[in-house]
Amino acid sequence: MNNLGIVKRNITRADKAAVEKLSRFGVATIHEAMGRVGLMKPYMRPIYNEAKICGTAVTVLLQPGDNWMMHVAAEQLQPGDVVVAACTTDNADGFFGDLLATSFQARGAVGLIIDGGVRDVKDLTEMKFPVFSKAIHAKGTIKATLGSVNVPVVCAGAQVNPGDVVIADIDGVVVVPAAIAQQVADAAEAREANEGDKRAIFASGVLGLDYYKMREGLAKAGLRYVD
Amino acid sequence: MNNLGIVKRNITRADKAAVEKLSRFGVATIHEAMGRVGLMKPYMRPIYNEAKICGTAVTVLLQPGDNWMMHVAAEQLQPGDVVVAACTTDNADGFFGDLLATSFQARGAVGLIIDGGVRDVKDLTEMKFPVFSKAIHAKGTIKATLGSVNVPVVCAGAQVNPGDVVIADIDGVVVVPAAIAQQVADAAEAREANEGDKRAIFASGVLGLDYYKMREGLAKAGLRYVD
Amino acid sequence: MNNLGIVKRNITRADKAAVEKLSRFGVATIHEAMGRVGLMKPYMRPIYNEAKICGTAVTVLLQPGDNWMMHVAAEQLQPGDVVVAACTTDNADGFFGDLLATSFQARGAVGLIIDGGVRDVKDLTEMKFPVFSKAIHAKGTIKATLGSVNVPVVCAGAQVNPGDVVIADIDGVVVVPAAIAQQVADAAEAREANEGDKRAIFASGVLGLDYYKMREGLAKAGLRYVD
Amino acid sequence: MNNLGIVKRNITRADKAAVEKLSRFGVATIHEAMGRVGLMKPYMRPIYNEAKICGTAVTVLLQPGDNWMMHVAAEQLQPGDVVVAACTTDNADGFFGDLLATSFQARGAVGLIIDGGVRDVKDLTEMKFPVFSKAIHAKGTIKATLGSVNVPVVCAGAQVNPGDVVIADIDGVVVVPAAIAQQVADAAEAREANEGDKRAIFASGVLGLDYYKMREGLAKAGLRYVD
Amino acid sequence: MNNLGIVKRNITRADKAAVEKLSRFGVATIHEAMGRVGLMKPYMRPIYNEAKICGTAVTVLLQPGDNWMMHVAAEQLQPGDVVVAACTTDNADGFFGDLLATSFQARGAVGLIIDGGVRDVKDLTEMKFPVFSKAIHAKGTIKATLGSVNVPVVCAGAQVNPGDVVIADIDGVVVVPAAIAQQVADAAEAREANEGDKRAIFASGVLGLDYYKMREGLAKAGLRYVD
Amino acid sequence: MNNLGIVKRNITRADKAAVEKLSRFGVATIHEAMGRVGLMKPYMRPIYNEAKICGTAVTVLLQPGDNWMMHVAAEQLQPGDVVVAACTTDNADGFFGDLLATSFQARGAVGLIIDGGVRDVKDLTEMKFPVFSKAIHAKGTIKATLGSVNVPVVCAGAQVNPGDVVIADIDGVVVVPAAIAQQVADAAEAREANEGDKRAIFASGVLGLDYYKMREGLAKAGLRYVD
Repeated sequence: MNNLGIVKRNITRADKAAVEKLSRFGVATIHEAMGRVGLMKPYMRPIYNEAKICGTAVTVLLQPGDNWMMHVAAEQLQPGDVVVAACTTDNADGFFGDLLATSFQARGAVGLIIDGGVRDVKDLTEMKFPVFSKAIHAKGTIKATLGSVNVPVVCAGAQVNPGDVVIADIDGVVVVPAAIAQQVADAAEAREANEGDKRAIFASGVLGLDYYKMREGLAKAGLRYVD
Repeated sequence: MNNLGIVKRNITRADKAAVEKLSRFGVATIHEAMGRVGLMKPYMRPIYNEAKICGTAVTVLLQPGDNWMMHVAAEQLQPGDVVVAACTTDNADGFFGDLLATSFQARGAVGLIIDGGVRDVKDLTEMKFPVFSKAIHAKGTIKATLGSVNVPVVCAGAQVNPGDVVIADIDGVVVVPAAIAQQVADAAEAREANEGDKRAIFASGVLGLDYYKMREGLAKAGLRYVD
Repeated sequence: MNNLGIVKRNITRADKAAVEKLSRFGVATIHEAMGRVGLMKPYMRPIYNEAKICGTAVTVLLQPGDNWMMHVAAEQLQPGDVVVAACTTDNADGFFGDLLATSFQARGAVGLIIDGGVRDVKDLTEMKFPVFSKAIHAKGTIKATLGSVNVPVVCAGAQVNPGDVVIADIDGVVVVPAAIAQQVADAAEAREANEGDKRAIFASGVLGLDYYKMREGLAKAGLRYVD
Repeated sequence: MNNLGIVKRNITRADKAAVEKLSRFGVATIHEAMGRVGLMKPYMRPIYNEAKICGTAVTVLLQPGDNWMMHVAAEQLQPGDVVVAACTTDNADGFFGDLLATSFQARGAVGLIIDGGVRDVKDLTEMKFPVFSKAIHAKGTIKATLGSVNVPVVCAGAQVNPGDVVIADIDGVVVVPAAIAQQVADAAEAREANEGDKRAIFASGVLGLDYYKMREGLAKAGLRYVD
Repeated sequence: MNNLGIVKRNITRADKAAVEKLSRFGVATIHEAMGRVGLMKPYMRPIYNEAKICGTAVTVLLQPGDNWMMHVAAEQLQPGDVVVAACTTDNADGFFGDLLATSFQARGAVGLIIDGGVRDVKDLTEMKFPVFSKAIHAKGTIKATLGSVNVPVVCAGAQVNPGDVVIADIDGVVVVPAAIAQQVADAAEAREANEGDKRAIFASGVLGLDYYKMREGLAKAGLRYVD
Repeated sequence: MNNLGIVKRNITRADKAAVEKLSRFGVATIHEAMGRVGLMKPYMRPIYNEAKICGTAVTVLLQPGDNWMMHVAAEQLQPGDVVVAACTTDNADGFFGDLLATSFQARGAVGLIIDGGVRDVKDLTEMKFPVFSKAIHAKGTIKATLGSVNVPVVCAGAQVNPGDVVIADIDGVVVVPAAIAQQVADAAEAREANEGDKRAIFASGVLGLDYYKMREGLAKAGLRYVD
């Protein structure tokens, strides 16, 4: 049996307009708009603070210490794609550096999400190629064992299918299934509008206790004020 | 029995002059001035490098995945307070974001120390609302279960009582019991003066071995120089 | 028996020209030039992003919570040295701060690599004294138990002998044995030249698959393209 | 949008004969038979050494600190099922104890895999109810927020769909998709037969170098024997 | 200022009858009876599976790599006491072994809870001296720096005051403040009785959904059953 | 340059008599006898409680996810050897199982120390082949990249040279350089004799405070007894 060694060429990417709309919102907003699901684990951090990504996923399943599939993935990239790299085991080697970034950028990719390590961080920062990773590690990798490209993967605790929208900013990384991208974008828009109003209200000194009418619920739950 | 669901309204805050004086010193200095106690664990990190806090603690005991008590705490805040949020279990959800920060800031709070996650970090940075946390995580929280406000808590390994002074900077977070705040501030001042002198001495090439008269002690302990 | 309490005064430092040449290359390049060995674990991070070190190792073996040996090490420093501090057990206390940094800098040291904690990070950053550490921690240390200076140590998973060249940048920390410093520097130079060419090629859209002639190997390994 | 709060009642369980056949093999063998995929992370450990599970997955998506959905899942259990519980965030609370185990056992469930904590371990051991978990923790949970039952989940890094076969023993936990259960069972059987032969051969002193004919490959890769 | 170097000789131990009553219940039951507070973190594990402790706390605050205060604590022990050892920083050295255990046992101590390491585990197991620790580590410690005995400490995330009741079993470690020991014991007794009934009910096939009347609440929260 | 791909055939093993003598003592005793150095990190745990190893090291440097070198190492084994396997990066894959154990046992090896994962733990336990590892993991490995055999390695934080004596028991793993094996064995013997006496003394109620004459030192350090 062989569940590895597969490259799927034709994937259905999320609708471009939905991706564009999702790019206007932050990760926290989109995660809320989806009903509080879809987040990667918080150990995924940007290599520089301003890093921000919104694109359609080309997925890669790596083997530990081996970045062969990253090269295979490069050929499958289209403008607007983000590479989402998982690994068959926990491994923080430096699977990715400035040369692969140059190649990915030449294909129009907008960033990398990797449940592993990256290196050449100074170059990547200068190139403004955003990467969210588990680690920064100079450790080199080999090209010897097959993984897969564009199969469903689990990356940093989140299920990612090829073509899904992946959004990343300083708050983390969220995955929006392609099928509901437009719906989530609309929900995020509604939520965002609402937030702006709230900010002004809370700035004026109104308490969440009153604005959200929490006092009754708290009392019912048994909250006791003591002196 | 019910050890949760309590909000203490009247707490004794540390003396304002002592707080002001403590605000002039760094965390390392204050920790030394107290006899090397009172530090939180080093996983507590600022969300931006320049973040600095010195204020009187309003404590919150959270339940995992639930930020209801943060809203209850907001009402108890007075100018100069810092919210110190602990949790009944390890949990890195995003209990706090820009809206709560707006509310806290409107009440005069000077920052947040949370043994959990925060989100909306870009907004918080722009608002210059300093936060020290265990994680940055977009994960949303609910409002369903009671914790407490202004009870003694253990936050990141440190005991914090309501009204204690909490000082945070890039070196970490230290807690000064209200009762000894003035005494610690005085000790910190004495220590700081002393440090300035030392810096010049060491810059001139004098060794700590000589300045601190360590050579005899080292020899007595058996230190051997070999070629 | 006594394996501790030793200070070796005369150590053979790597050739100055080799050190100078190594200083021109990044950690990832040097690690590759050595055949992918010599790296410390990726938990070693710079206290500020621009930190960069290249120098000859003066090694220190610390005891937990005790920085006595740091003072002993100071006397052994020569211009161009980097202090590499290991500990007899896992410990993240703040073994090092601005006063020791002043002393080290006065002796000509170019930085510190420590498998432990540091403090006074704001001062160290202003002094431009680069430090790579496991943690930032205000926790103070004592001066009571002997360790050693200039003995072989294991620091963050890497073997370091006194006099070895240690190079550190945002990608991590690499150790080059003194005996092969020139050879590694030459190999790094060759590799770097080669990299520059590649960057332009990949920027033009050539794929690694073609440039490295990977297609045959991948097919032979059984890679299948599906639609 | 609402991705939570769903209970799927009719799921397609893997073929009973395939499950029975898979139950004869260990986790390592099955993982190899699948082409080295499908494993959960190694932090998943049995609560007692002899614990062994092979059953069809009823999946649960929990909220942190909340085990409401475990009760909902109980009703969906059929004889031979194993409950696979994931959580929307990292949380090690004690979601499961002897009462739920009694209920699960009464329904014919054969065990629990939980990316969280369990308690009442002494009782569970006496009941011979096998559990593989991330932690043992007495921390109690509430019943306040909806998760889901029988939706696809990511548990300890592995994708699990309802009805998949889950096998667990002292070597870890592996997930076999229902659709390939029979095929994997057959491959495992073939592999196991083969292993028995090998054990005798290696016991007689034959080296893997010779048995697997590795010497040529090693020489070609450049292996050098030195004295 | 000096917050360390203190030995409090006269402490108020929890009532003997309450301690005896608490010893009949498990950690999970007692934690629930207290309203779900008082637990140490789940990394605290017994050195052998059958280890069980119930006693009154003599607290120790250790310095990293230094077990001097363990000897000081020994003199303060009375029959029925359990030593609860915290440390001023994270440190897993082997602070405790068979000799100290012999000494503690000679004084009537019933066990040790230590947020650090222990060694001589084989001997401790044979002596049936129960220990719950963060680590097993052969690393030796020194006797050079003062900590304190019988001051309030934070051990594995829990506040412990001298004289509190500490109960430990395979589910973890829980701390009951001396002042409420009797009350908690009574609540635990009530809870336990209740549990026995429930076990039989669930064994008969009754679901928690029905027994706890959860269906209405779930429906109200929006739970949807789909096919 | 090529620092990998080397197999050293002729190594100098520690003196047999010294190894035999060291086998009589526990890890904690030997570590103390060496002056408190030589320990591996405490995450190294036995796969079964009774596991105990004392032998001469044949070292292996593995690549992540690749156990090719384990087979190369097998040929270098002599009766009484213990395999000490390090990896070029952090990796917990299952590098070792029952077949390699059979092969190692056939060559006379007495155990395995591996800074990685193992599998087939049930078989290994039945074979009574002792293994100390970082993890238990079913994850399979490949045979594609060269590492080395019988070169100096860093394993779980300890430097190990081929031929060194490695002793492992439930307290951890300690490495004794071949050159001082006899000296350490003698020191351990002296220490052990001494311990037996002490155990009886402490059992009689004598305090360490008095036996070790600590009271004066404590008083001098400033210890204060309060009521």
